[in-house]
Amino acid sequence: MAILMHDLAGADPSLRFSPFCWRAKLALAHKGLAVETIPWRFTDKAVIAFSGQKRVPVIRDGETVVADSWAIAEYLDRHYPDRPSLFGGELGRAHARFIATWADTTLNGGIVSLIIKDIWDILDGSDKPFFRDTRQSQFGRTLEAIQAGREERLAAFRASLAPLRLLLQKQDWLGGAAPSYADFIVFGSFLWARCASRFELLDPADGVAAWRERMLDLLDGLGRNARTV
Amino acid sequence: MAILMHDLAGADPSLRFSPFCWRAKLALAHKGLAVETIPWRFTDKAVIAFSGQKRVPVIRDGETVVADSWAIAEYLDRHYPDRPSLFGGELGRAHARFIATWADTTLNGGIVSLIIKDIWDILDGSDKPFFRDTRQSQFGRTLEAIQAGREERLAAFRASLAPLRLLLQKQDWLGGAAPSYADFIVFGSFLWARCASRFELLDPADGVAAWRERMLDLLDGLGRNARTV
Repeated sequence: MAILMHDLAGADPSLRFSPFCWRAKLALAHKGLAVETIPWRFTDKAVIAFSGQKRVPVIRDGETVVADSWAIAEYLDRHYPDRPSLFGGELGRAHARFIATWADTTLNGGIVSLIIKDIWDILDGSDKPFFRDTRQSQFGRTLEAIQAGREERLAAFRASLAPLRLLLQKQDWLGGAAPSYADFIVFGSFLWARCASRFELLDPADGVAAWRERMLDLLDGLGRNARTV
Repeated sequence: MAILMHDLAGADPSLRFSPFCWRAKLALAHKGLAVETIPWRFTDKAVIAFSGQKRVPVIRDGETVVADSWAIAEYLDRHYPDRPSLFGGELGRAHARFIATWADTTLNGGIVSLIIKDIWDILDGSDKPFFRDTRQSQFGRTLEAIQAGREERLAAFRASLAPLRLLLQKQDWLGGAAPSYADFIVFGSFLWARCASRFELLDPADGVAAWRERMLDLLDGLGRNARTV
């Protein structure tokens, strides 16, 4: 039986953009596990009440419910040890967690300020006021004000990718000779931007853009075939 | 026979401050390998010509010469597999390399702009003009101008540590349940600042400062006992 997963969707239910849901979908595909996704909206809290919390991704694997992309990746490596590894052991997992906290702060913080109004544009009816209210309260400004002047802020965002750029001069993937969950963490953020916005984050001559192209082709083109706005 | 290592020193030869040399010394201690360090100055290029390059750390282990802190750590895990691991395998190493590129760019780039004049102050005679000329040429400003206004820039530096701060809320060490080479990478940068400058980088209430305290005590207090300016 396929694993079920609640996956954040826009007004168009085929538009799936959450960076954390992408991490989980990429991890499931890497493991070769079939998944059936269920479109979910920010305001569908009741639908995932069974998971004991209010965010996606949530997966249900038989009787087992796991919420949170990091917990899902840990669960998959623990529960399916004979399938391709996401972390490659304890230190692989511990070190990948820094890559996750970098993505959660520096990378996602940079991206959200460039596309937050674009995200609002693709949301379903009742999600729009929820997203606007929570984000405006968090940032202390309107969505329009947060996103304003993004062309001028793009150079600083690209500079913030220096650790990733330097790494990709030394190895082809964050996982070294082959992609690992670390690649999925960072790629999830780029898929978020690709699906929700037409604003181009990268200079095509950047090594990060070349890695993103390779990531788009991985896993039978899971990223490249995703619906975009 | 002890491993020999050329180690950057100030005018006071017991003042050892290079972040990259600290990475190597911490890695050697973690492996339980005896090391005999040889004070080296930036202008002693001829002394390490045998290594085929111009920077420290350089180690000599019997007939084997290894330069570059990353290459040294890889060599130690490969050559001494029965001693405590630095990387814990291929993915542990691949993922740690991102932590190294983050330290080399974001972390060290932040620190150097706060203490660059302090570093110059502790250098030996002929190293002073070398360091001033190369760094001023690289930054396009005087050392004094680079360091100026550091109190006002400290908040931005501390904000740049967000990925590290968030990680240390989830696990005690970058290596997870115990320190790994990833801890040594980041701690090497804090030891660099501690040895070369009296400027305090961290708020004592910061979780990063608590981790730094734990790191100072590790390996029989190798960091805490280091000579400071």
